[in-house]
Amino acid sequence: MKNPPALEQLIDSLRCLPGVGPKSAQRMAYYLLQRDRNGASALSAALETALEVVDHCKLCNTFSEQPICPLCAADNRDKNLLCVVEMPTDLLMLENTHAFMGMYFVLMGRLSPLDGIGPKEIHLDKLIKRAQDGLVNEVILATNYTVEGEATAHYISELLKTRGIKTSRIARGMPMGGEIEYVDSGTLAQAMMERRNV
Amino acid sequence: MKNPPALEQLIDSLRCLPGVGPKSAQRMAYYLLQRDRNGASALSAALETALEVVDHCKLCNTFSEQPICPLCAADNRDKNLLCVVEMPTDLLMLENTHAFMGMYFVLMGRLSPLDGIGPKEIHLDKLIKRAQDGLVNEVILATNYTVEGEATAHYISELLKTRGIKTSRIARGMPMGGEIEYVDSGTLAQAMMERRNV
Ligand SMILES: [Zn+2]
Ligand SMILES: [Zn+2]
Repeated sequence: MKNPPALEQLIDSLRCLPGVGPKSAQRMAYYLLQRDRNGASALSAALETALEVVDHCKLCNTFSEQPICPLCAADNRDKNLLCVVEMPTDLLMLENTHAFMGMYFVLMGRLSPLDGIGPKEIHLDKLIKRAQDGLVNEVILATNYTVEGEATAHYISELLKTRGIKTSRIARGMPMGGEIEYVDSGTLAQAMMERRNV
Repeated sequence: MKNPPALEQLIDSLRCLPGVGPKSAQRMAYYLLQRDRNGASALSAALETALEVVDHCKLCNTFSEQPICPLCAADNRDKNLLCVVEMPTDLLMLENTHAFMGMYFVLMGRLSPLDGIGPKEIHLDKLIKRAQDGLVNEVILATNYTVEGEATAHYISELLKTRGIKTSRIARGMPMGGEIEYVDSGTLAQAMMERRNV
């Protein structure tokens, strides 16, 4: 005895969401079918649209609906500075501080060998190429001050230094183990100003 | 500065899932677009199909792709017994014990006034009508032995008794506060056999 096939299929499909196990997928499916059919329909459409229109910016690698994202295409940014962050959220957080007017590169992750995330998964080839466009003269590493974020910054700084590219790290203005996404603007702005060579 | 519109829309839409807040919706959206586009596409399709084909059985109220579900339509069930459960999962659990060969009614919830779930939300009109089909001669209340499940059973038993319908409650074979979904088959089978009049 099982749920109807289309319901089982929905429960299965919900399990592709990170952190969602069989029990919670079932609870979600029941909830959607019973109490929020409009929400379910909107979610289906939003998934389809996002898959269709959202890709990665060719320059900074963040999510974008254009080949070059609005920030990379803007003409009021300092093309000499390239700030490397782990995730798009980190970019948005830094923008909100108004402490940085340069360009970005988004790794879409951090080195994490145990999870199978190596240099390729965080697009380091693309970063190296980006940093050698002839305009960038300093790469600011703004990965998190976690163990993995630190290891990632160290790895990238080695790569860049062998290519003669000046590299700095945002100052440790945040608490140890802290993640950029959760730090207040003031602290983050200070960390940006006090960046040091590495 | 924000995410691209289609990505913001996806993050918003994911929040219709129970237990998913803004941070976790964002994490899910990033994950899907970056690492599991096939899963996202399958989820979109599964939502659409389920919304289209899954409705409630006219007799037992469980999720069904047919107007009358296969269990209600089967000719080898005892039409004199009607077992009332909270959720479709509970029905599936009871079926797995093979201790019951009667019919079911699925409330799709439990009374919970604080959450705005009253008699109407758990389809008690439909249940009363179902219990008076002329064949049912005993309604077995198999709601959970939680505070809300107990209150629901009590409320339903009062409704049925004023209509002269014999009502029983599955025996407390399970631990206090236990939920049917998590109890082993043997305990559940025993509880079914030892049901008592209420
Ligand atoms: Zn860009
Ligand atoms: Zn049915």
